[in-house]
Amino acid sequence: MRARELNWMHVEEYLVREDRVVLPLGSTEQHGHLSLETDNILAERVSAEAAEPLGVLVLPVVPYGLTPSFAAYPGSPSLRLATYVALLRDLLDSLYGQGFRRFLLVNGHGGNLPAGALAREWAGEHPEAQAIFHSWWSSDRVLATAREIDPRPSHANWFENFPWTRLAGVELPEEPKPALDQGAYRVAGPAEVRELLGDGVFEGAYELPDEQVERVWQTGVEEVRELLEDGWR
Amino acid sequence: MRARELNWMHVEEYLVREDRVVLPLGSTEQHGHLSLETDNILAERVSAEAAEPLGVLVLPVVPYGLTPSFAAYPGSPSLRLATYVALLRDLLDSLYGQGFRRFLLVNGHGGNLPAGALAREWAGEHPEAQAIFHSWWSSDRVLATAREIDPRPSHANWFENFPWTRLAGVELPEEPKPALDQGAYRVAGPAEVRELLGDGVFEGAYELPDEQVERVWQTGVEEVRELLEDGWR
Amino acid sequence: MRARELNWMHVEEYLVREDRVVLPLGSTEQHGHLSLETDNILAERVSAEAAEPLGVLVLPVVPYGLTPSFAAYPGSPSLRLATYVALLRDLLDSLYGQGFRRFLLVNGHGGNLPAGALAREWAGEHPEAQAIFHSWWSSDRVLATAREIDPRPSHANWFENFPWTRLAGVELPEEPKPALDQGAYRVAGPAEVRELLGDGVFEGAYELPDEQVERVWQTGVEEVRELLEDGWR
Amino acid sequence: MRARELNWMHVEEYLVREDRVVLPLGSTEQHGHLSLETDNILAERVSAEAAEPLGVLVLPVVPYGLTPSFAAYPGSPSLRLATYVALLRDLLDSLYGQGFRRFLLVNGHGGNLPAGALAREWAGEHPEAQAIFHSWWSSDRVLATAREIDPRPSHANWFENFPWTRLAGVELPEEPKPALDQGAYRVAGPAEVRELLGDGVFEGAYELPDEQVERVWQTGVEEVRELLEDGWR
Amino acid sequence: MRARELNWMHVEEYLVREDRVVLPLGSTEQHGHLSLETDNILAERVSAEAAEPLGVLVLPVVPYGLTPSFAAYPGSPSLRLATYVALLRDLLDSLYGQGFRRFLLVNGHGGNLPAGALAREWAGEHPEAQAIFHSWWSSDRVLATAREIDPRPSHANWFENFPWTRLAGVELPEEPKPALDQGAYRVAGPAEVRELLGDGVFEGAYELPDEQVERVWQTGVEEVRELLEDGWR
Amino acid sequence: MRARELNWMHVEEYLVREDRVVLPLGSTEQHGHLSLETDNILAERVSAEAAEPLGVLVLPVVPYGLTPSFAAYPGSPSLRLATYVALLRDLLDSLYGQGFRRFLLVNGHGGNLPAGALAREWAGEHPEAQAIFHSWWSSDRVLATAREIDPRPSHANWFENFPWTRLAGVELPEEPKPALDQGAYRVAGPAEVRELLGDGVFEGAYELPDEQVERVWQTGVEEVRELLEDGWR
Repeated sequence: MRARELNWMHVEEYLVREDRVVLPLGSTEQHGHLSLETDNILAERVSAEAAEPLGVLVLPVVPYGLTPSFAAYPGSPSLRLATYVALLRDLLDSLYGQGFRRFLLVNGHGGNLPAGALAREWAGEHPEAQAIFHSWWSSDRVLATAREIDPRPSHANWFENFPWTRLAGVELPEEPKPALDQGAYRVAGPAEVRELLGDGVFEGAYELPDEQVERVWQTGVEEVRELLEDGWR
Repeated sequence: MRARELNWMHVEEYLVREDRVVLPLGSTEQHGHLSLETDNILAERVSAEAAEPLGVLVLPVVPYGLTPSFAAYPGSPSLRLATYVALLRDLLDSLYGQGFRRFLLVNGHGGNLPAGALAREWAGEHPEAQAIFHSWWSSDRVLATAREIDPRPSHANWFENFPWTRLAGVELPEEPKPALDQGAYRVAGPAEVRELLGDGVFEGAYELPDEQVERVWQTGVEEVRELLEDGWR
Repeated sequence: MRARELNWMHVEEYLVREDRVVLPLGSTEQHGHLSLETDNILAERVSAEAAEPLGVLVLPVVPYGLTPSFAAYPGSPSLRLATYVALLRDLLDSLYGQGFRRFLLVNGHGGNLPAGALAREWAGEHPEAQAIFHSWWSSDRVLATAREIDPRPSHANWFENFPWTRLAGVELPEEPKPALDQGAYRVAGPAEVRELLGDGVFEGAYELPDEQVERVWQTGVEEVRELLEDGWR
Repeated sequence: MRARELNWMHVEEYLVREDRVVLPLGSTEQHGHLSLETDNILAERVSAEAAEPLGVLVLPVVPYGLTPSFAAYPGSPSLRLATYVALLRDLLDSLYGQGFRRFLLVNGHGGNLPAGALAREWAGEHPEAQAIFHSWWSSDRVLATAREIDPRPSHANWFENFPWTRLAGVELPEEPKPALDQGAYRVAGPAEVRELLGDGVFEGAYELPDEQVERVWQTGVEEVRELLEDGWR
Repeated sequence: MRARELNWMHVEEYLVREDRVVLPLGSTEQHGHLSLETDNILAERVSAEAAEPLGVLVLPVVPYGLTPSFAAYPGSPSLRLATYVALLRDLLDSLYGQGFRRFLLVNGHGGNLPAGALAREWAGEHPEAQAIFHSWWSSDRVLATAREIDPRPSHANWFENFPWTRLAGVELPEEPKPALDQGAYRVAGPAEVRELLGDGVFEGAYELPDEQVERVWQTGVEEVRELLEDGWR
Repeated sequence: MRARELNWMHVEEYLVREDRVVLPLGSTEQHGHLSLETDNILAERVSAEAAEPLGVLVLPVVPYGLTPSFAAYPGSPSLRLATYVALLRDLLDSLYGQGFRRFLLVNGHGGNLPAGALAREWAGEHPEAQAIFHSWWSSDRVLATAREIDPRPSHANWFENFPWTRLAGVELPEEPKPALDQGAYRVAGPAEVRELLGDGVFEGAYELPDEQVERVWQTGVEEVRELLEDGWR
């Protein structure tokens, strides 16, 4: 149930029986040959599909996140960490004031991890609320499913290449990308990141058959749904 | 040209010849019987339609804004002013660092006006950049067009009721809403705002024929397009 | 009743029967040939004259505001938006803690408009308080009175030229200034603003007979007084 | 030379030959039987008298400062420390951008001492600028002069009781106030401060003959003038 | 080489030939039966032992971090995320200004992970600097070594129980603690965390023979040393 | 009783009967020929010795403070004032939430004085708490004792030269340093401070016999102890 398809009266009715809400967290940033909005699309869509049968409200994705390392890739605006933390705090405060109590932050971008620390901090100040931060693609379960298919699911490779993130008319390299030098990446500034990554993909195959990535996707959707159903205290 | 349909290589090519970008500003909030995302939809769509023939890049709408007065309407999360200002500053800084120089902030929500002050402040610190803040619906030109149709274009009434903001299955009152008591609104807190507005619409007719609102829309699109073409120094 | 003429015992007595207070908001900045303190003088004076017969307390004007566009005119210090918002929030919090409940912010400077958003935000968090932000010179009523006299009341022209803002020994141009190019102004940075405005006056006549500007003044004073009396909920 | 009596052209001419400026720092707060604006009046006036023969520019006093300990005395609004620091930083940044290089902050209120730390911090970041923080009343020299007259010059007693801070029609106690219990004051919250201080005066005589306080005043004015002349590197 | 044993002249000489520095990050917080300063001790000590043979400077540990989840355990003060980020930014800025260019942040506390995001952000703004964030105990290598010894190295259990973190006279439970319910922990507020953890240990054995934990320790020291030597670009 | 030697169960027992806590405030910075951690060492040690016989808890010293004036001396990292204030506020808030009510901030560094203003501000918001800020070395009593020994106790001279702050193998100048030019120091930026101070010592003898400095030390310890015992309301 997306906010886009509701008016406030619907939400008021909803809050009579329900206090859960999903806030997807994305980032507009380089994803190699894929859409700049890959993280936004995936976080919002996995949330919506998971929430659909439960009738849980999904808010609009926060489309800007923490991606300073991709600064040399145009089209990758980044928030400062301090701002991002304030943004999430305000949203939680405000939604809490309107009656929501259980918040699932479904994250689509690795750089956004500090949002998990903020969720902990915020929840610590609101004993009646619960806030779960969940990076949908990096759970043990989703990664296990992915690794059954291919050993290197990663940023902007086949692992994020879905019918809804790839771009019409963009051809992909056929050969998998060599493994990322993690040590070099750890200490790379934006210029070195670009030099290291080139087209922006970390490593591995650029594309796999849809029925394979679809299995990963379904695992992700199911896990978010289970969290929504059973993840609370 | 929406970011969603591009990858970073597209943007890199774009920046060779171009330095303009549109950032739509919205708000998820009560719009009476219309979608909670009305401001997001309108700001993003007016931007996209205006930019399309010019090939100018349109970023994802910032879907959360300043709407403390609607706090008593569930589904209306609000940022604090200090956070909103930091958010916009970060986006401008970051995009500037990636080569953009002319920023058009297309605003869809009255409460976001301080973004205009921020744009002034930020541009003052970046002599090579230009930043225009434009509330698409409240310009003299759009309001003049609207008032030819009906004297009271306003929040959540016919003036924001487009095929793309109205909700399936939601019936609208047939009688226009009585005029808003501006004096009472000025001093109303969230509880009084809700008491005063009831269904959230400020005043006037709930719906007018599509061909009439379409005229308003076209005026808005054209004005944004002209700003994009000729609004710069 | 100005704070300057009171001690705390007076205020304590005052608070037994009263909970209103006026906070004038100014800006130290270029006003063409007029005093750098024009906005401070006008905001404070209009407040004091309005409040006098009602016995309402008027605090010292906040003499620094938001004026980044005048950065190329020396003598125009500006606060950052984030700071200004914090400043007003602290004053409201602190005065609230001392018993005040109804706040009238009488603004003398166009750039300070975000103070209105802050007043909304703050009041939304304090259901027992009321905060009105009023730009004394730009209300429909004052502008209507002004336009009966001359069609272009504006920054630093006759509209702000009172016996108490003009400077001894400063001669004014006799010819009215040509109309401001609003489009150019919208996108002007500080250097362009200075180039565009030259002496700092926006447009129109530099001076009109005192009995005419006095009519504008009286309208402003009366409106502030009425707000103080009847503007509350 | 006060900003009030100048326009920006005057300041532009001034900056051709001069780069000094005085920023008086005050506080609106309880001063026993004296004006709530005592600190504002004294900081601004001592600055103006000192600067007058030198032709140095004096800006409007910052009329709100750090006075949390007087929260139980109505009419004593306080800024948070973080806000005050941001406010002073913005003013210094902004004035620096307009050509000023030597800043004398003339402070009238004990609680504002952190402004001195900010001045140090800010100056450390601007090697070409100099910023002196000077509490005019608490220098060795002024206190020595005062103590020749009476051993306990202090907050709101004779030491701040000048023809320009006392209020018409307010009678003062004839007996000096007993010595302040410094140990109790150190650990007092606002309620205990009020209980401890009663009328708000710290200790000592309420009033002394004008020719005596005038000696203190002249010492203060002279010292500020000497700083303006010879205090720089 | 610890700062404690140096004066500034030593550091000045050091900077002639060297630009590396280690900043250990700790947290004062519950560690079950172990010292409240366990994270401080370990982060500082692993840094010092690693840096010793290289002659690299180790700064004093930052002894307060992000630990909101342990709020119900007295003696566990926590910084807000926004503050922590500002603190680290200031230290990096300031040290950079004094000539350091390669920063190794050796972290001892899981809650401090956002420091890694800050290091990325800060380094992105300083192309000539490098900043590595390294949680010494949670690297693949250290965890692998630990799991060879016991499958559940974790907070406050044997994995942090060293001769230098255990307290004299404190007896430890002999039986290992049952496995932590990760799902419950994820959504636990401070009160639930305390209920869930009881004595504060997550799970597993409380103590193992020193020669075993010493192997873990040596692995940690070696890895930090290798990073200091070869981790840079 | 140092936090290092306790676990949380000890603190929980402590809080049953006690609500006092000591937070030492230091600074890592140039101290002439003495340890960069001189302020940390002294603040923590004077606290520990004072608290020992009373059984009061002493937290780890905050080892970074406000020292922008020493920026030209490597090894002197400084926090911004705004950050420092936030840091102390968080610690006080957090410790208050865990049951502490009486806070003694024992300060070892002159530049940290704004911490006193923060303590006042914070305590004003927490009527049930008490917060004392005490610069152990600059009290009337300690300075009087010191001046009986030598007229110029000062930064980094004999007055801070204890067996626990001096460095092995570092020779000190035998001649006392000439008096500091206070006027020059007041207006000095970091470069001028370094030029003015040379080796970083302000003035006076570099070293005095241990039995003499020990008298100063004992006075400092006793005064802190008395504050801990009798300084509260």
